[in-house]
Amino acid sequence: MTAIRYELLKKDKQTGARLGIVHTPHGSFETPTFMPVGTQATVKTMSPEEIKGMDAGIILSNTYHLWLRPGHDIIREAGGLHKFMNWDRAILTDSGGFQVFSLSDMRKIEEEGVHFRNHLNGDKLFLSPEKSMEIQNALGSDIMMAFDECPPYPASHEYMKASVERTSRWAERCMTAHTNTDQQGLFGIIQGGEYEDLRRQSAQDIISLDFPGYAIGGLSVGEPKDVMNRVLEFTTPLMPDNKPRYLMGVGSPDSLIDGAIRGIDMFDCVLPTRIARNGTMFTRKGRLVIKGAKFARDFGPVDETCDCYTCKNYSRAYLRHLFKADETFGLRLASTHNLHFLMNLMKEVRQAIREDRLLDFKEEFFEEYGYNKPNAKNF
Amino acid sequence: MTAIRYELLKKDKQTGARLGIVHTPHGSFETPTFMPVGTQATVKTMSPEEIKGMDAGIILSNTYHLWLRPGHDIIREAGGLHKFMNWDRAILTDSGGFQVFSLSDMRKIEEEGVHFRNHLNGDKLFLSPEKSMEIQNALGSDIMMAFDECPPYPASHEYMKASVERTSRWAERCMTAHTNTDQQGLFGIIQGGEYEDLRRQSAQDIISLDFPGYAIGGLSVGEPKDVMNRVLEFTTPLMPDNKPRYLMGVGSPDSLIDGAIRGIDMFDCVLPTRIARNGTMFTRKGRLVIKGAKFARDFGPVDETCDCYTCKNYSRAYLRHLFKADETFGLRLASTHNLHFLMNLMKEVRQAIREDRLLDFKEEFFEEYGYNKPNAKNF
Ligand SMILES: [Zn+2]
Ligand SMILES: [Zn+2]
Repeated sequence: MTAIRYELLKKDKQTGARLGIVHTPHGSFETPTFMPVGTQATVKTMSPEEIKGMDAGIILSNTYHLWLRPGHDIIREAGGLHKFMNWDRAILTDSGGFQVFSLSDMRKIEEEGVHFRNHLNGDKLFLSPEKSMEIQNALGSDIMMAFDECPPYPASHEYMKASVERTSRWAERCMTAHTNTDQQGLFGIIQGGEYEDLRRQSAQDIISLDFPGYAIGGLSVGEPKDVMNRVLEFTTPLMPDNKPRYLMGVGSPDSLIDGAIRGIDMFDCVLPTRIARNGTMFTRKGRLVIKGAKFARDFGPVDETCDCYTCKNYSRAYLRHLFKADETFGLRLASTHNLHFLMNLMKEVRQAIREDRLLDFKEEFFEEYGYNKPNAKNF
Repeated sequence: MTAIRYELLKKDKQTGARLGIVHTPHGSFETPTFMPVGTQATVKTMSPEEIKGMDAGIILSNTYHLWLRPGHDIIREAGGLHKFMNWDRAILTDSGGFQVFSLSDMRKIEEEGVHFRNHLNGDKLFLSPEKSMEIQNALGSDIMMAFDECPPYPASHEYMKASVERTSRWAERCMTAHTNTDQQGLFGIIQGGEYEDLRRQSAQDIISLDFPGYAIGGLSVGEPKDVMNRVLEFTTPLMPDNKPRYLMGVGSPDSLIDGAIRGIDMFDCVLPTRIARNGTMFTRKGRLVIKGAKFARDFGPVDETCDCYTCKNYSRAYLRHLFKADETFGLRLASTHNLHFLMNLMKEVRQAIREDRLLDFKEEFFEEYGYNKPNAKNF
C-alpha cells in the first residue's frame, strides 16, 4: 500500500495541463497547487489555521533546518512534525540537499555523502541519503524527497553527467533506507540542468526505481525563464501520467502558470513570504511596494479584486504605516495577501483547466500583470 | 449627553473593590479590566479579531506615536483610528504627555506647553493641551486623556506642587479645547507623586472640572510597590463613586489585583507584549522564560491551567524552538498567552468581587505565583 496516490481528473485541451488530486495520509489536495513554505516548522508569521483558511492542502518544510534546530530527535519525541507544529494536513519535506549546496561552506562531496559546515555555528556535519531518510522518517512528512546533488548553474556537461549519475545511485540508496513506506511516500528527483540528454538519462534512471511521485530539480537556480520552460517541455513528457510531478523552488505567478501548462502539478517557493518581509505584494496589475510615499493617503485595499483578510479589512495607507513603523502585524497582513494571491491563482488555473482555456487565462493574466510589456522583468 | 458613562454594579465586601460597566460609543466593557496597548495602531503582533477573542472591550493607543507617524491628519482622513486599524470596540488614547517626558530629549516646559525633539528624527516639536486635544479629536478615540506633566521620580515637594498646579491649569484648557464631547469622553488625570497633600490638591482641582472619568498618573514610574499602594489608598477615596477610575501604566499581576482592591477600574501596560518579545510568559506559578534549555523536550503547554490558543495547541518545546529560530509566530503565541493571562486574571478578579472574596483570591493567587516568597521581586 503506497502512502501517496495521484488521481488524474482531466487535461486542458489547449495545453495538456493536468487537473488532479493527490491523496496523502493527511488528506487530499487538488493540483496544480502551490505549497506554502514553512522552513522552520512555521510558515513565516502565519498560524496553521490561517494557512488552512487559504485552502492549502499541503505545506513544505525543510529537513536541513529542522535537523539542525530543534533536531529531528526532538520532533520525533513530540510525535512528529504534524503534531509539533499543529498542522494536520499534508507535509512535504525536502531532502536537505539544496540547503547543503546553497547555505553551507566547505562542502566536500563523496560517494558516501556530503561533508559540510553547519551555517549556524560552523560545526562539521555529514549528510547522506541514509541520514536524510532517517531525518525525514523522524519528521513523519507525508512526502519525503530523495537526497540529491544540486549542481551549480551553469555546470559543464561533464560535471553534470557525473552528478546525475551520483544522484541516481543516491536515489536507490534512499529507497532502500526509507523505513515507513505505508505512511510516507518518497519522491525521486530528476536532475540534468539544461542538457536534454542528461535530463533523459536522469528521468530513465529515477523513474525505473518506481517512486510514487517525481520532482524536477535544478531549475529556478538563475537560468533564464525560457530555458526553464524548454527544460520542462522535454522533461515532463518523460514522466508517467499516473504520478504527481513537482517543480521545486518555483513560485512567481508567470512560472506557476507556465509550469502548469507544461504538466506540472506541485510547486513551492519562499517568494510570497520573502517579498512580504519588505512590504512587496502581488496584485493583478503587478507588484506593489507598500512603503512608497504615494500610498500614505491611499485608503483603498492592496488589490481591489482580492477577497483575502488583508484586502477586506485594511487599506494601503494602514499597511504602509505598519511597515514604516516596523510593526509585525504588517508582515502578517502582507504574507496573508501574498499567499492568498498565489493559492487563488492556482484555483483559477485549475478552473481554466476544467474549462479547457488555460492558454486564454495565461494571456489575460500576463497582459494585466504586465508580463507582456517589452521591459517586463522576471517578477 | 456624555460619551462615557459608568455603572457601579457592586462592591466587594472584603475590600471595597468595584464591579462595574463602562459604556462608550463603541460598546461597553466590565470593570475592573485590563486594556491591551496598541501603541502604533496595532497591539503588537496581534490581529483585532484575536484581541476580541480575549474579550477585550477596550484597547489603548498612543497619541504621541500616531501624531508623529503616520500623522493624525491621515488617520482623520481614513475615517478615524477605529476604521484605520479595523477595531470597532472602544479605544482610549493617552495625551502624549508621558511620551514627551519619557522618550524625548531637550524638553523645555512652559506654561503654554512643551518644546521637545521628535525621538525618531530629532525635529523640533511643540505639544500643548490644545494640540493634544486636536490630535485626539482627529483620532476619534472613545476616551481621551488630558495633557499633563509627568514629573520625574523622585521629585521634590516644591517641584511637584508647581507641576500639579500647571497640570490643573492644562486640564481646564483641555476641557475647553475638546470639541467632540458627544462622541469622545475626556478623562482628567490626578498627579502629585507620593505626596498626600498634593494628591489631595490635584484631586480637588481636577474633580472640580467634572470630567466623565479620572485617572491616577505618576505611578509605576520606579517607586516601590508599597508606595504605589499607599498612594492609591489615600487617593481613590477622594474620587467620585459614579465615574470610572484608571490607574495608568500598571499591568503586573500583583499590581492589577492590588489596584482593584483599592478601587481601580481600568489598567493598561505594555508589559504582556513587551516581555513576550524575548519569550517570557506569565504562568500561575510565576514567570517562565521559554528559551531555557530545560524546555527543549518539554511537550506540555506553557501553563496547564490556561485555555488560550497557545496553550491549547502548542508545547513549550515548540515555543522554545520558535524563539531560538527567531520566528515571528513565536511572538504571536507568547503575546497571545500573556494577554489572555491578564484578561483572564481580570475576569477572575471580577468573579471574586461578585462573590465578596477578593482578598481570599489575592492570597491564593499570590501564594501560587510566588509573590509571598521572601525573595519575591516586583514581577
Ligand atoms: Zn488580498
Ligand atoms: Zn495560555
